Amino acid sequence: MLVLGIDPGSRYTGYGVVRKNGSELVYVASGRINAARAGELSARLPVIYEGIREIIETYTPEQCAVESIFFAKNAMSSLKLGHARGVALLALSMADIPLSEYPPTSIKQAVAGHGHAKKDEVQQMVKLTLKLRGELAEDAADALAVAICHCQFAGFAERLR
Amino acid sequence: MLVLGIDPGSRYTGYGVVRKNGSELVYVASGRINAARAGELSARLPVIYEGIREIIETYTPEQCAVESIFFAKNAMSSLKLGHARGVALLALSMADIPLSEYPPTSIKQAVAGHGHAKKDEVQQMVKLTLKLRGELAEDAADALAVAICHCQFAGFAERLR
Repeated sequence: MLVLGIDPGSRYTGYGVVRKNGSELVYVASGRINAARAGELSARLPVIYEGIREIIETYTPEQCAVESIFFAKNAMSSLKLGHARGVALLALSMADIPLSEYPPTSIKQAVAGHGHAKKDEVQQMVKLTLKLRGELAEDAADALAVAICHCQFAGFAERLR
Repeated sequence: MLVLGIDPGSRYTGYGVVRKNGSELVYVASGRINAARAGELSARLPVIYEGIREIIETYTPEQCAVESIFFAKNAMSSLKLGHARGVALLALSMADIPLSEYPPTSIKQAVAGHGHAKKDEVQQMVKLTLKLRGELAEDAADALAVAICHCQFAGFAERLR
């Protein structure tokens, strides 16, 4: 099973592709879509949309996962994040890829073993789980984390059947 | 000049099309895209996107206008509104139609003559301006109001040249 995790942001949108082979998780790709350089918000949205479409075309994921809706620091951050997240969900939906959403605490729990893990702890655990060396950008790490979370929940659901 | 006004919402997205003939404003069409019936937010986004694309195909507007980013009641409303607004801006951007954004007070000022007009006052003034009789849904009225606002500002800009 090939899973695409997306971490939407109005400036940078992280993505991570993970393959689940039985109980093994294999790193496929990760990176970030740089929409910030497009300028104002309305010009960034097509960059995010086309970026995700390109990733889908390149890796043809079978399933995808994003962090569920959460409260940003304030109403303005929420509104801007909403624009990016809306466009990301649209791209996934238009490609007809089943989408799962997970709350931040479930993602941290899945990756680091507890729901209150800090950013760098999540980053380290993502690298350890996927046997990655070297630097991993924060947006990419967050996207890989939600993909890992989905793989684990999917595995759990399989065992329940 | 044919202007499309959009009033994005995660449940209902209003639209209004107005033609500017010199100083005269002529009503062309209005209505709302009902995304609420699609169910959860991620399922509503393609409805909004395809709905706006259909409106653009039908009326081929030359310019479009939306209310600028504003603070919703709370972070959760802002986030949901952001999803809808993001998808709406994307549809307009993908169709390559020049977009203008106006703050709520400018729209009220343009339509009702003062920036603190109430909802029903805006609605009445939209009907009066466009010589409309009968009922006008709130979302449609808001979308027509932003289209009227854009026509007036465009006219003002022309006179300045």
